[in-house]
Amino acid sequence: MTTRRSRPGRPRHVPDSGTTSPRDQILDAASRLFVSQGFAATSTREIADMVGIRQASLYYHFAGKDEILGELLRRSVRPTTDKVEKILNRVPPLDFETALYLLVLVDVRTLADVPHNVGMLYQLPDVAKCEVYDEFRNEHAELAAHYADLASEVASKTVRATVSRKQLGDLLIQQVEGVINMRTEDPDRRIPCREAWAIAATCLRICDVPQEKIDAAAPIAIDLLPQFIDDKVVEPA
Amino acid sequence: MTTRRSRPGRPRHVPDSGTTSPRDQILDAASRLFVSQGFAATSTREIADMVGIRQASLYYHFAGKDEILGELLRRSVRPTTDKVEKILNRVPPLDFETALYLLVLVDVRTLADVPHNVGMLYQLPDVAKCEVYDEFRNEHAELAAHYADLASEVASKTVRATVSRKQLGDLLIQQVEGVINMRTEDPDRRIPCREAWAIAATCLRICDVPQEKIDAAAPIAIDLLPQFIDDKVVEPA
Repeated sequence: MTTRRSRPGRPRHVPDSGTTSPRDQILDAASRLFVSQGFAATSTREIADMVGIRQASLYYHFAGKDEILGELLRRSVRPTTDKVEKILNRVPPLDFETALYLLVLVDVRTLADVPHNVGMLYQLPDVAKCEVYDEFRNEHAELAAHYADLASEVASKTVRATVSRKQLGDLLIQQVEGVINMRTEDPDRRIPCREAWAIAATCLRICDVPQEKIDAAAPIAIDLLPQFIDDKVVEPA
Repeated sequence: MTTRRSRPGRPRHVPDSGTTSPRDQILDAASRLFVSQGFAATSTREIADMVGIRQASLYYHFAGKDEILGELLRRSVRPTTDKVEKILNRVPPLDFETALYLLVLVDVRTLADVPHNVGMLYQLPDVAKCEVYDEFRNEHAELAAHYADLASEVASKTVRATVSRKQLGDLLIQQVEGVINMRTEDPDRRIPCREAWAIAATCLRICDVPQEKIDAAAPIAIDLLPQFIDDKVVEPA
């Protein structure tokens, strides 16, 4: 289920400066530092040093640390949110079970593939105090609302009677964001397909979707998934 | 659902030094500082200053910052783990659905009541680097194993065939620990009974427990819950 393939014999721990834009190199170094030592404790000088550029060059690409953080936070949510419309267009009409299953798979992939487990940034208290965090919070709420919308389409009467629409969306996003905690626990952790499918099925079960509907939705969603994955590094034919 | 009641006319933001032990005052100040500014960035001097004692007095109670952190981490997990046996003894024999429902309610209360959302400490990267974190990780794994044990007793054949025992435990604990994220998002957040019940029912649904069994388990578990709650401040009769 890995999408980024490095060329044989070239294990990469730092981005390859030959192919990665300076902007991406800065984002990569910053996320590494923010996640390991916190946002407040990291200076733009340290970020520049890690990339091997001058601080002035960093300011050519970003207005400051906040802007870097904002961009990083967006990268853990926006790739999923941006695909919601496409998901709804590709699944069979009114098949909200498949749409929800596919949304979960896409979101798991976003969280699993974002470098340095950037998703964990929004659990850091010093990040939550930043102004850019408020913008991000809105993006995150937008994604939670998409979950809530799909979930309330597929949820049983009992679930709709006992769990508010908002809480239902939050329960699902909480389950998917388990991927962040898995990666925090073990930085080399991969999320195999089997585990991703289990998370998606779990989200449908939370809505009390009967097993036969999960069994119908899963293969369609799994089949559609490759259309939603951006392979940044494409293997030569 | 609030258990700690301050006496009328005495809203407390800091622990009342008249009734709280120095040890608890240190823990309270430390958790407040660790959560707001990180573990690495907090000194024992700052903790002592916040309590209003000398640094030397702090060292009378704790060997150092690590020991304080260890104690705090334990307080977000141990109170639940310690009750597992009692839970199994109080619910009707072999009624694992009720046991699981009750375990979730107890755990939600532990996470909801622990001061300053201490549960979020174990998501902080600078905490994960500490030696005491390893001990805590074992305690957390012990709790996850209890979830896995109960879950695999109640899970449907399909769930057991498609989700590993370990992942099932992790899915449940992930759902319950949503309480930590709720409190991070909004520090004044309370978890009303309705929401706690929804989390417990969700955990049973994740195991594919049929609705009629959830409906049977819920009232028994809700009825037993008060026996598992330590009211630290008891209202005068």
